[in-house]
Amino acid sequence: MRNLKLTICYDGTDFHGWQRQPGLPSVQEALESAFEQITGERPNATASGRTDAGVHALGQVVNLYSASRLRPDVLLRGINAKLPRSVRVLEAEDVPQAFHATLDARSKRYRYVIDNAPIPDPFRRRYCWHVGYKLDEARMHRAAQALRGRHDFRSFETEWPNRTSSVRTIFEIEARRDGSVVLIEVEADGFLYNMVRSITGTLVLIGGGRPPEAFAAEALAAQSRKDAGPTAPPQGLFLQYVRYDRTPAPIPLDEEGR
Amino acid sequence: MRNLKLTICYDGTDFHGWQRQPGLPSVQEALESAFEQITGERPNATASGRTDAGVHALGQVVNLYSASRLRPDVLLRGINAKLPRSVRVLEAEDVPQAFHATLDARSKRYRYVIDNAPIPDPFRRRYCWHVGYKLDEARMHRAAQALRGRHDFRSFETEWPNRTSSVRTIFEIEARRDGSVVLIEVEADGFLYNMVRSITGTLVLIGGGRPPEAFAAEALAAQSRKDAGPTAPPQGLFLQYVRYDRTPAPIPLDEEGR
Repeated sequence: MRNLKLTICYDGTDFHGWQRQPGLPSVQEALESAFEQITGERPNATASGRTDAGVHALGQVVNLYSASRLRPDVLLRGINAKLPRSVRVLEAEDVPQAFHATLDARSKRYRYVIDNAPIPDPFRRRYCWHVGYKLDEARMHRAAQALRGRHDFRSFETEWPNRTSSVRTIFEIEARRDGSVVLIEVEADGFLYNMVRSITGTLVLIGGGRPPEAFAAEALAAQSRKDAGPTAPPQGLFLQYVRYDRTPAPIPLDEEGR
Repeated sequence: MRNLKLTICYDGTDFHGWQRQPGLPSVQEALESAFEQITGERPNATASGRTDAGVHALGQVVNLYSASRLRPDVLLRGINAKLPRSVRVLEAEDVPQAFHATLDARSKRYRYVIDNAPIPDPFRRRYCWHVGYKLDEARMHRAAQALRGRHDFRSFETEWPNRTSSVRTIFEIEARRDGSVVLIEVEADGFLYNMVRSITGTLVLIGGGRPPEAFAAEALAAQSRKDAGPTAPPQGLFLQYVRYDRTPAPIPLDEEGR
């Protein structure tokens, strides 16, 4: 059996998330079904992590084992021919037997897209959250820096207590404006359930000007979900990429050297 | 009765075009229904021109008569609150009684968007035509210049003979690349049925390298739809804007002074 690594993108609008669920459309089901139509094998695809219903991916990474002898580029074209147009395989390559898309991931980067125009753009409605009042992205960016580094992020986790730890490391977090769009990007060694969406909800409150910039730091310190902002809706969230470098990205220090 | 001019944008994906049709969703029906919910009046909205099923608009212009005394900005917000998210009113203003969105239009500009990446982008699939082989946009642009000026465009009209003339004036036509996207833009004093889509189908043939650049000029001269290229699909087409200037745009001459 060979171990295949697939990099895929998908429009999450019409899926109930990555993970296979009986009777519901999922990206995993779509991918495994397309693979089966090409190879005759029903694989079990392992992703870097689940994405929720309505969440998109620009560079999700998946691995699966197969006895197929088709070349990776032939598999890529074949699978793409069978997939719905909302999912595409971008890259396919053979990787060592031990490679595991979930366990070997060193960092993942998510992007949250906010349409900050007064009138929401119909063409972006499936791919952003519309916030009609003007956001102060510089304020959001400064506030967000309190979340960098290694912390217990249970204040930004929807289902706490979870089975394991809520400690994660954010390598980079930024908020910036591109015209009428405000982008929030977070790169971390892992993410809790709804973590980026609750960070976004918190930063949008701060960007609206009411709570002080310290609200993000205070929410983190409170160790309680109710002390942070609301959970932003799923359709603005994109999994950008997953890194499998042997050496994880360094943890940047902020100005105070924390 | 006041005469209101509305500039609207819409994602045409879920509509059977601009024009009201019994039992089918249309942009006109959506707009008139939203207006009625705000004012209690059922207007008859007149657009600069129909757009077909699946075609989008960034700046369609509509006028309608109303006895409502609401301020234009209040009407705009009210209508937007009632419209489906796929349609937005961008501007609302009072105009002279005589203003007619169709008859007074001096020029309209359409954009056709082609996704020219090897692997089609799932996020663009509702808003472009995917052409998987590399297009030569410079060749397309040069070939397109033969269509500039005043001509009988029946070779690029789906339903000829029509009731009136097939003579139109193209003020500007261009093909250009923006990364993996190839854009075709056409500004004219009016458009025949499927004109931009059949011009696009013709230019894409030329961009693929098989017919000579002169194929566009020959198709125009042939005065027969079967001598031009195929009709490109609707989802790549956007009505960009409509001009109502008193003085129409000058007709550019090509190098030969035609």
